[in-house]
Amino acid sequence: MENKSQPKRPITSYDVARHAGVSQSAVSRCFKPGASISKATRAKVMKAATLLGYQPNAIAQGLITRRSNLVAVVISSLTNLYYPEVLAELTQRLAVHGVKVLLFSLSHESDVDLVLQQVWGYRVDGAIVAARLSPEQIRDFQKRGVPLVLYNRVEERAPCDSVCCDSAGGERQLVGSLLEAGHHHFGIIAGPVDSYVGEERVRSALECLATAGKRDIPVVRGEFDYQTGRAGFKSLVEQTGGKLDAVICANDLMAIGAVDAARHDFERDVPSEVSVVGFDGVGPATWLSYNLTTIRQPVRRMTEAAVTMLMARIADSSNPPERRLFSGQLLPGSSARFTT
Amino acid sequence: MENKSQPKRPITSYDVARHAGVSQSAVSRCFKPGASISKATRAKVMKAATLLGYQPNAIAQGLITRRSNLVAVVISSLTNLYYPEVLAELTQRLAVHGVKVLLFSLSHESDVDLVLQQVWGYRVDGAIVAARLSPEQIRDFQKRGVPLVLYNRVEERAPCDSVCCDSAGGERQLVGSLLEAGHHHFGIIAGPVDSYVGEERVRSALECLATAGKRDIPVVRGEFDYQTGRAGFKSLVEQTGGKLDAVICANDLMAIGAVDAARHDFERDVPSEVSVVGFDGVGPATWLSYNLTTIRQPVRRMTEAAVTMLMARIADSSNPPERRLFSGQLLPGSSARFTT
Repeated sequence: MENKSQPKRPITSYDVARHAGVSQSAVSRCFKPGASISKATRAKVMKAATLLGYQPNAIAQGLITRRSNLVAVVISSLTNLYYPEVLAELTQRLAVHGVKVLLFSLSHESDVDLVLQQVWGYRVDGAIVAARLSPEQIRDFQKRGVPLVLYNRVEERAPCDSVCCDSAGGERQLVGSLLEAGHHHFGIIAGPVDSYVGEERVRSALECLATAGKRDIPVVRGEFDYQTGRAGFKSLVEQTGGKLDAVICANDLMAIGAVDAARHDFERDVPSEVSVVGFDGVGPATWLSYNLTTIRQPVRRMTEAAVTMLMARIADSSNPPERRLFSGQLLPGSSARFTT
Repeated sequence: MENKSQPKRPITSYDVARHAGVSQSAVSRCFKPGASISKATRAKVMKAATLLGYQPNAIAQGLITRRSNLVAVVISSLTNLYYPEVLAELTQRLAVHGVKVLLFSLSHESDVDLVLQQVWGYRVDGAIVAARLSPEQIRDFQKRGVPLVLYNRVEERAPCDSVCCDSAGGERQLVGSLLEAGHHHFGIIAGPVDSYVGEERVRSALECLATAGKRDIPVVRGEFDYQTGRAGFKSLVEQTGGKLDAVICANDLMAIGAVDAARHDFERDVPSEVSVVGFDGVGPATWLSYNLTTIRQPVRRMTEAAVTMLMARIADSSNPPERRLFSGQLLPGSSARFTT
């Protein structure tokens, strides 16, 4: 049997008004928080609305109240395992404020140009952006009056609200512990060149190593995924002629790839022969086969902060910007040999 | 120095009209595909629009064209590793059609009730739903004229468009191979009771086993994550007094947890002492430490199909529904002992 039910046109406030025997503006007031309306009229309207299955159109209401109740979330690499957690937390926290996420997903951080035109088109109430924005792009948000919170990045040249995990502080803990435990031959697996957090982490790790007199550290680039972490380890072994006892990775997924490369491709014990450290504290970092030594970002506190800041900025755009910097937590794990 | 730039109100079509010395309706026609407008007027409008930084409001346009260019995607468990890939693919494929994803993320499939009211409020052009809908809820989409494609589930009692990976066929391959290789003592780690795909997979696995004369198979429940897979393995060992040589898991993450439990908690070799199989083919399934025996869902083809069906349904809602069922691909891996 075929399903022949034809979709109907949506029920409008005019239909409800006709059915309830009241004016359209009475229906409209009935669904507007704080608007004045008599008890009797409200009862008539609600009865008709329920009967007809009427839902006030949130978007049309947004045009009236100048609020769309949509927030753009711009995120790169949804398959990177760190961002799904961030997105799930943001979506649920924004829902508490009656706000939905309009999702913009990028393959690369630098693709953000392509989506900004679309962001303007939707008249969002605000945006949370975890992608690389130029100072001009940030100023464009300000010129257009679109509240913005940067997630895990800051731009010194164009101050705006931001929430970050302390990359420098995290790397200092990791590299400091590796040095203290007597590691000599370091290598780094960096992220893509357009990744803000990736570059921050590598810059900070190299600084810590330089302070300890260690220079000319080999750096190879990956794409924040398992495969390029595994390939990166191989490149480092080749570049160093195998003289490698500590590998610093710009995120956990590449560290997991490096651990597997060490064990399965090169038959080196982790951590007794080579230590591997990551960054993020994603779920798989704690799996027994890896038990990664890493820095866990406080994702719940960071997303809570981003949503709170954005809602405050939407309510009052006149405050000067604020930066919130959260320290990560060292997960000692067992992929690095540390002095206890 | 504080950033004191005050956000301005958005530029409207009236501002552009005033600046270009034309009527507002001329500006409106200029941004409406196919509308008639003289070359000279178009040039004036575009010049003023560029100068003022005007963007036509996609949402206001949607109210006129009766298209919002928003599609609701309802998904549960973003942190489940399978869904981020689906979401990334859907977002990018819908973007090709100029459509953005309005994201509804659920903690549990059965929470869908809570979000449907919001879906109606946004007047979306359509919805792709990967969560459990009752026949009444599906009919509600049809009554309201909201095109719907179900992702990885069907509802016999309320026919509608759907895209699925063949759970039954996948389990037949896995269980058939396990039986053929001479496994005797089976256990199952199922998903949450409200998961459509989870229940399908378990039902099918039990059917295959029953056909081979194997009944009273112990089944424990997990939450589709690593931790409950690990705990599930422990429960199965306890329930069977350790007599367990094949564990069938309703998804990959639980299978990975079960492999780690076998190796690290019980010091049993995988696969020579116990075989473990999963379902989905998520990224970590192929990591060297696991190399899981599983069924890979063809996510690209499935998401492509879902978007194509939804766009066709939006364009013409009169066609009877279609179901598309994709076979998964067996990844032999090395977590199960199969006869070669």
